[in-house]
Amino acid sequence: MKSVRLGIIGLGNMGLGHADNIISGKVSRCEITAVCDPAPEKIVRFPQAKGFARSAELIHSGVVDAVLIATPHFDHTVSGIDALQAGLHVLVEKPISVQKADCERLIAAWQDPKLVFAVMFQQRTDPVYRKIRELIQSGELGQIRRINWIITNWFRPEVYYKLGSWRASWAGEGGGVLLNQCPHNLDLFQWFFGMPKRVRGFCGLGRYHDIEVEDDVTAYFEYADGATAVFITSTGEAPGTNRLEIAAENGRLVFENDVLTFTKNETPMSEFSRTATKAFAAPATTESRFTFPNHGGQHVEMLQNFINAILDGRPLIAPAPEGIYSVELANAIVFSAAHNQTVELPLDAAAYEKFLQSKVATSRFKRGAKRSPGAIADDLAASYKR
Amino acid sequence: MKSVRLGIIGLGNMGLGHADNIISGKVSRCEITAVCDPAPEKIVRFPQAKGFARSAELIHSGVVDAVLIATPHFDHTVSGIDALQAGLHVLVEKPISVQKADCERLIAAWQDPKLVFAVMFQQRTDPVYRKIRELIQSGELGQIRRINWIITNWFRPEVYYKLGSWRASWAGEGGGVLLNQCPHNLDLFQWFFGMPKRVRGFCGLGRYHDIEVEDDVTAYFEYADGATAVFITSTGEAPGTNRLEIAAENGRLVFENDVLTFTKNETPMSEFSRTATKAFAAPATTESRFTFPNHGGQHVEMLQNFINAILDGRPLIAPAPEGIYSVELANAIVFSAAHNQTVELPLDAAAYEKFLQSKVATSRFKRGAKRSPGAIADDLAASYKR
Repeated sequence: MKSVRLGIIGLGNMGLGHADNIISGKVSRCEITAVCDPAPEKIVRFPQAKGFARSAELIHSGVVDAVLIATPHFDHTVSGIDALQAGLHVLVEKPISVQKADCERLIAAWQDPKLVFAVMFQQRTDPVYRKIRELIQSGELGQIRRINWIITNWFRPEVYYKLGSWRASWAGEGGGVLLNQCPHNLDLFQWFFGMPKRVRGFCGLGRYHDIEVEDDVTAYFEYADGATAVFITSTGEAPGTNRLEIAAENGRLVFENDVLTFTKNETPMSEFSRTATKAFAAPATTESRFTFPNHGGQHVEMLQNFINAILDGRPLIAPAPEGIYSVELANAIVFSAAHNQTVELPLDAAAYEKFLQSKVATSRFKRGAKRSPGAIADDLAASYKR
Repeated sequence: MKSVRLGIIGLGNMGLGHADNIISGKVSRCEITAVCDPAPEKIVRFPQAKGFARSAELIHSGVVDAVLIATPHFDHTVSGIDALQAGLHVLVEKPISVQKADCERLIAAWQDPKLVFAVMFQQRTDPVYRKIRELIQSGELGQIRRINWIITNWFRPEVYYKLGSWRASWAGEGGGVLLNQCPHNLDLFQWFFGMPKRVRGFCGLGRYHDIEVEDDVTAYFEYADGATAVFITSTGEAPGTNRLEIAAENGRLVFENDVLTFTKNETPMSEFSRTATKAFAAPATTESRFTFPNHGGQHVEMLQNFINAILDGRPLIAPAPEGIYSVELANAIVFSAAHNQTVELPLDAAAYEKFLQSKVATSRFKRGAKRSPGAIADDLAASYKR
């Protein structure tokens, strides 16, 4: 195999964006040989590819080696399982599923280690996030004590939610800002810090918009080693903030306004505390500032990485099984808020599924209803910010 | 009365500091005519004043018009009630008491409106905090939606807690960072934003130090109008942070690194959300930055304000009855954390008193035991930062 024959399932904003990157030659050794969407007017944009209305037809067509799943979230599970069982490589958009139980089902379908199974967490290619992770993993930061990430630069006006009745509904999307805008941030959170032991969530359901799901979130995490964290997000705030602060033994790391600042302690804070002889003394510090010329390869790098994994056995930037963690965090926050109590992790997937089913049952959006076209006129790229 | 005859009760760090300000002539129309402390070696430093070992003796001596109470926290209530009932003006150090029920008892003893009854919240004199309050009260910020205050620049090494066995104990101080370091921050919080309707606290008890009370806190507040807030503090983190972010309808206000930045929306965020026609549009903004040449009059201004209120009827910067709010917030956070549940405000003062009594009963520190001298060799002034 010199080139991967790719099928794109779902030609919404994301699917079309990925197709553009491939067709314009940004991804080597990859050709789109099939596309799938219920809308015929989208299919006809790809005369060079076979067109299908249903994902199963594409998966079993014999004209693809791999699929990119970019359907609405709920459909990731079924299409992903079908494709893996058919022996195809799979790259699935985030979130890999809308709830933990579906993630487990999807991951369980991945039985053949020769199949490449990846998730589109393209923010892992951003040099600033790679640098943060490197500072943590190398031990440069020392033990992490407290984290505060305010990521409220996801402002969406009311019209955004009017573009599709499935949007921001329990039945249509399975959740709100945590499932649609934040999977990247929650993935980075677990990529940096691992998973907490307990989660307390506070969610505003339709606080800023006429929607039934969360559009405003504050969450508190506790980790096994005693570290604590606060994660805050919203689609209602303007201007938004993206500020990540990490308080660690060896100093404080802050990312805000595209600058990463490391204020490093000459003596780790706990060691200083134990040995200081003056009651108001504090460790001396030095400051380093890092800036980054770009946001990394993003979607194109992820697509190329997927292709290189298939053809050359290169390691994945984001193996799909890691996609369960961001979903579990999102689910745990929503579950905690709904029950007004702390949730221990691992989350009880069956309990969450039952909860979600009860929400879906009374959702405004009825599954099977015709979806709105969902085409968004203005600049989608503007939403791909850090 | 041309000059106020002041008695200082308690000659610890704070009492001695206030005495210095008065003796060095920084406060007009005020003379120290009496001092009180159990330590004779402190009394002899004030040859011009009458010395007493017990507060009741000073209060009923007839040589003072007013008292400044700077004893350990637990004693504020008894001395304050005694002084008010004796017809003296009272300026009490923060916190006015260690728990809400004592605050209520103290405030109830203030029956004569001619008596001036003030609390030492000197951070209300800081121009940056006055500016923040003005931007809120004038309506310039518009409705407040979310608040995040990280105030972790209270680092204290272990030795700080070794200087007095009463420190950071349930029986000796009644609490930890929330009662000792944070009363100012909690007062500013309520001075800016009013009181929340509910509080969820998460406290680390002796997380960073060998103490029995909280030295690490994350708290989540909800307000009657739906606003949310996070308040984070610690005495274990170095380097610390002081960053206050206020997300409001008319923009975002951030105070950090001694700069106040107002990013103002041309259209309020909710109005923009309702009227925008593009799905990824956001309000245009303009940025204003404010810096302040100093921290204001601080302790001296508060002392002078107290004197001016007595002699000229000038309004107080910090009336003592407002001191109950910061205590109620501190108590609610600790109570919520201890019971692992959200607390509705107003806090049940009797329930908190019962809780505190149970903690005092098993405290490491036994009341009545001899207090350590508590003299701190290095620069106390270094601890008076924003």
